[in-house]
Amino acid sequence: MSEKYLEDFAAGQVYGSGRITVGKERIKAFAAEFDPQPFHLDEDAARRTIFGGLAASGWHTAALTMRLLVQSELKPAGGIVGAGFDEFRWPLPVRPGDELSVESEVLEVRPSKSRPNQGVIKVRTTTRNQKGEAVQVFVGNLIVPRRQS
Amino acid sequence: MSEKYLEDFAAGQVYGSGRITVGKERIKAFAAEFDPQPFHLDEDAARRTIFGGLAASGWHTAALTMRLLVQSELKPAGGIVGAGFDEFRWPLPVRPGDELSVESEVLEVRPSKSRPNQGVIKVRTTTRNQKGEAVQVFVGNLIVPRRQS
Repeated sequence: MSEKYLEDFAAGQVYGSGRITVGKERIKAFAAEFDPQPFHLDEDAARRTIFGGLAASGWHTAALTMRLLVQSELKPAGGIVGAGFDEFRWPLPVRPGDELSVESEVLEVRPSKSRPNQGVIKVRTTTRNQKGEAVQVFVGNLIVPRRQS
Repeated sequence: MSEKYLEDFAAGQVYGSGRITVGKERIKAFAAEFDPQPFHLDEDAARRTIFGGLAASGWHTAALTMRLLVQSELKPAGGIVGAGFDEFRWPLPVRPGDELSVESEVLEVRPSKSRPNQGVIKVRTTTRNQKGEAVQVFVGNLIVPRRQS
């Protein structure tokens, strides 16, 4: 797939992704470095927490989502550059062995008023587990260059 | 510092953090695993992108922010459990060698209507570099247990 410019995006487009499996040891290693809390580090301790068992850090889910996005067919020229989010939530925990995939739907395409060579696309990115349940949903705004005329 | 319950939080409270330095090699290693784009992977390639030089993945900044938060004095009983965000943005890139710290301000404390044993605190968490510039701002909602009466 070639790189896309603002003119190539339209509301309603949907981009899928590959899949990635989240292993127990990677969950613990990510948590040890970035989110060292019992429910992300240790099965026994996790059982006695709000999660009821080992769960991936939400930031691990977010980082894996980014990897799936970068490898997906959503390929803005200049890369995937986020300007911020309007919404961001984790409806369900990610468990060891879950297989994640991502679907991105373009909600809006907006040329920039101040910068004639770029614009913003608003995209809802939903990360699902192997049962199709949403484990992360965000609505983000990506900076996308316009095609040189 | 001891663990805090919903009753211990009040709007206007501010919690600081320690500091962490972001090394060039860690920026590249995080990007190779989670966000393999030229501006996060390679100095030369990064110079020709919208970032104008190597920058940390925003998800790396988010993950480091979480580590600083977990080690800070913001210690809800039961851990830092995010229910979602109302706002999330990266105003400036994080560069190799930047030293990050985090400040969390409690904006709102709200008992849950449906779950009498917990509530939500709304917190604005600002991540700053060594110049005091905001590199990440989010307003998040954390689930916090109420003290048993």
